[in-house]
Amino acid sequence: MPQRTVYFVSDGTGITAETFGNSILAQFSAKPRHVRRPFIDSAEKALQVVQEINETGVREGKRPIVFATLVNREVLGIVRSQCQALVMDMFGTFIEPLEEEFQVKSNHRVGRFSDVARSQEYHDRIEAINFSLAHDDGQSARNLDQADVILVGVSRCGKTPTSLYLAMQHGIKAANYPLIPEDFERAALPSLLQPHKKKCFGLTIDPDRLSQIRNERRPGSKYAELVNCHYEVREAETMMKRAGIAWLSSTHKSIEEIATTILRDIRPDRLIY
Amino acid sequence: MPQRTVYFVSDGTGITAETFGNSILAQFSAKPRHVRRPFIDSAEKALQVVQEINETGVREGKRPIVFATLVNREVLGIVRSQCQALVMDMFGTFIEPLEEEFQVKSNHRVGRFSDVARSQEYHDRIEAINFSLAHDDGQSARNLDQADVILVGVSRCGKTPTSLYLAMQHGIKAANYPLIPEDFERAALPSLLQPHKKKCFGLTIDPDRLSQIRNERRPGSKYAELVNCHYEVREAETMMKRAGIAWLSSTHKSIEEIATTILRDIRPDRLIY
Repeated sequence: MPQRTVYFVSDGTGITAETFGNSILAQFSAKPRHVRRPFIDSAEKALQVVQEINETGVREGKRPIVFATLVNREVLGIVRSQCQALVMDMFGTFIEPLEEEFQVKSNHRVGRFSDVARSQEYHDRIEAINFSLAHDDGQSARNLDQADVILVGVSRCGKTPTSLYLAMQHGIKAANYPLIPEDFERAALPSLLQPHKKKCFGLTIDPDRLSQIRNERRPGSKYAELVNCHYEVREAETMMKRAGIAWLSSTHKSIEEIATTILRDIRPDRLIY
Repeated sequence: MPQRTVYFVSDGTGITAETFGNSILAQFSAKPRHVRRPFIDSAEKALQVVQEINETGVREGKRPIVFATLVNREVLGIVRSQCQALVMDMFGTFIEPLEEEFQVKSNHRVGRFSDVARSQEYHDRIEAINFSLAHDDGQSARNLDQADVILVGVSRCGKTPTSLYLAMQHGIKAANYPLIPEDFERAALPSLLQPHKKKCFGLTIDPDRLSQIRNERRPGSKYAELVNCHYEVREAETMMKRAGIAWLSSTHKSIEEIATTILRDIRPDRLIY
């Protein structure tokens, strides 16, 4: 099957073009080649990328698809007029109706991330990452009262990546705390968590999947054994149910989906800003 | 000034709608209120969110703006026909021309993240997060040969968040290694890094900013003193220059911008997939 290439062209990082373009492409079964071309912020760079795109089209015998998030008018003009490609001008398409709605002209600022590095919001994100790292896997009980969320669950159910994602993308101070066999023997939530039950959120996982993940880490260990995984998951779920902690299964969910559910369920305020 | 609200409505996480909507809104100086409404995947939920949106419009005296990434046709139909709002139908707008280009109908799959949790790509992302955590701040010298990138620089210049971002968003195994006063006295790159120079990338930072950040952590310490920060930054830059390591300054850059530059400069292959 002939190859076809999709370009994400931006005068910023191109992350927006790529995120949005990929979610549109997910609607098609075709698997084109993806190329991101960030920081295309001058006529010279525009001409270079246009040449690359046009050569690709000739080579593949199919015109490329270009998702463009270009604020720079000159660059956008070159890409629109000279690319032998299907150009999806993502900003232009939506900015005009918004200018009409707001009754103001847009200010052509390049990049969603420009100048953010010194903003309070950015500072809070970095602080949240530091907090989540310091409170990974129950490492520290200090300042748990400052946590926005405390993820609980058995070892290797997805707590760490979810905490880091919540911190990095949403500036959420997300601690995570493992539930371990000793807790199950005592049949009680770790005492450190007792005062913070309201901000606890549980993750669980299919025991077969857990066993598979643990076997990658410690092949053949009791820790990874299917029967042990069944035991731990069952005990953890019982404990969370008794403590009134909401939980979800990470088995078929990405960290993005888990994080969004947690926000919706225990910090709906953070979906409004 | 009257408030106005922007809604991000999706039958998935709404992350795409929010990312894209925000980069468009960044073109305007208005600062509307943001509300994300994820998982709107049934007629019932659609009617509920439409009611919320319409009530908001009445209360604020300005019609809300709705960025919608809705694959579900029924939900999209309800939102489009019943919202008293400016509805930006992000999928519809771009999917039709693509259907024509590909000469196939789209398959209306909800959510860019659906079913990804068991894909190889997702597995690699999680592995990369684990790797980056294990190799944070020079913690481990094991398997450095497996790193895709090794970030170097003085303490608190932004290495850790950048490594985690590279891992989480791009599945890049990013180790990070601090340059410390002992290295400057020896006037040599840490010996562990010598065999891996080609995949090293440096971060530097404005000394005033560094002193400010370090003072938040350890107020009044020699570590945070401006004169010491000047010394460390100067020595680190000299060392990176001598070793032929490319670097950039994190002072005015977000982790997204830093990560994109690193990819472009030392792993351009990872912008193509």
